[in-house]
Amino acid sequence: MAGRQAVKAYLDLMSQPCRAVLIFLKNNKIPHTVEHIAIRKGQQKTPEFTKLNPMQKVPVLEDNGFVLTESDAILKYLATTYNVPDHWYPKLPEKRARVDEYTAWHHANTRLHAATVFWLEGLLPLMTGQPTNTAKLEKALSDLDGTLDKLENMFLKRQAFLCGDDISLADLLAVCEIMQPLGSGRDVLKNRPNLLSWRSRVQSSLSDSFDEAHAIVYRLREKFTAKL
Amino acid sequence: MAGRQAVKAYLDLMSQPCRAVLIFLKNNKIPHTVEHIAIRKGQQKTPEFTKLNPMQKVPVLEDNGFVLTESDAILKYLATTYNVPDHWYPKLPEKRARVDEYTAWHHANTRLHAATVFWLEGLLPLMTGQPTNTAKLEKALSDLDGTLDKLENMFLKRQAFLCGDDISLADLLAVCEIMQPLGSGRDVLKNRPNLLSWRSRVQSSLSDSFDEAHAIVYRLREKFTAKL
Repeated sequence: MAGRQAVKAYLDLMSQPCRAVLIFLKNNKIPHTVEHIAIRKGQQKTPEFTKLNPMQKVPVLEDNGFVLTESDAILKYLATTYNVPDHWYPKLPEKRARVDEYTAWHHANTRLHAATVFWLEGLLPLMTGQPTNTAKLEKALSDLDGTLDKLENMFLKRQAFLCGDDISLADLLAVCEIMQPLGSGRDVLKNRPNLLSWRSRVQSSLSDSFDEAHAIVYRLREKFTAKL
Repeated sequence: MAGRQAVKAYLDLMSQPCRAVLIFLKNNKIPHTVEHIAIRKGQQKTPEFTKLNPMQKVPVLEDNGFVLTESDAILKYLATTYNVPDHWYPKLPEKRARVDEYTAWHHANTRLHAATVFWLEGLLPLMTGQPTNTAKLEKALSDLDGTLDKLENMFLKRQAFLCGDDISLADLLAVCEIMQPLGSGRDVLKNRPNLLSWRSRVQSSLSDSFDEAHAIVYRLREKFTAKL
């Protein structure tokens, strides 16, 4: 890796997948610089950023001219090209398949449902000044409950982490989504001791990088609960 | 691979991801047996199948006792453990990342939106005897249009296939989703010459296995258009 340029990550830490990328970079001491793209200011829609990612989304990774989007793909690429501990994305096909199995499921489950709860209860009222649509919120919470049941009773049934006995990319992607509704004062793991223990294990494995990346969520929660 | 047992695939060919798995197995001549699980008969909910996959979903792959779900993960696992041409899931990290980038995006885009159109226009009216909810269908078609625009103007902008100059897992997963609304008489690529050319290229690359896997969709389309 000698002489290799630091990777550049375009991130907004209010975005769950961006936090996952930053935590991974820091935790694995991968040389990187961060370019902050503030979604609330529309900076993902500038002509310059659109040229980089026509989808106008973060995160984006730039590695010696190679531009990659989608946090799931970015984490797998970093795990493959940098010398990170094997547990993040194991090389053994059966173990790797477990991580790919979770991440394939993640997008339309953990990610979709946790993000919808935060959107309805946090962002949308903030942006429109309108109260939360309670019928929609109830539906979203029920969908999220189904997802949390599966995390608890299927993925974590016989093991400490989502895809085995050690932390992987899957846990990192999942935990960042599950933290998001905290920003509007809701801990979706309340009354779920098994998932709370899992989150503590993940948090311990990640040490300081977890809280550093989530500082923005903790600040938002304070603002939100002060307002109530 | 000498002495290796044939893999066992649990499939319902009305399911888009199941067709992708079957096409991949046949096209790459991977020794396999198929166990048909008829979703319309609830066979994915039997105690026996639930033990295999608590999610009660197909496809499921069984390889010498190793049980794997999620088509995306199944295809990557097969590409890794069997001697298939590199273009399906390239080993070069930058090329592989392109496939991971598409598949990460696929779940909440191509898959979600094409499946919703077929659900609203095909399955739901068939199951309930009620007419299609046109407001919901219009929303679903508009979402799907946004996805098709991105496939055309971003993924396929400078290349013949979604992730490069040759067919990959990404094209296979995408084409099986895009074929699904044909079952209720709608070709979502009508008036999209660029995507139609892409589909022809994919179909040619897959030869007979494509039409064999889609025979059930073609039969359903005939039934559906005869009824109109």
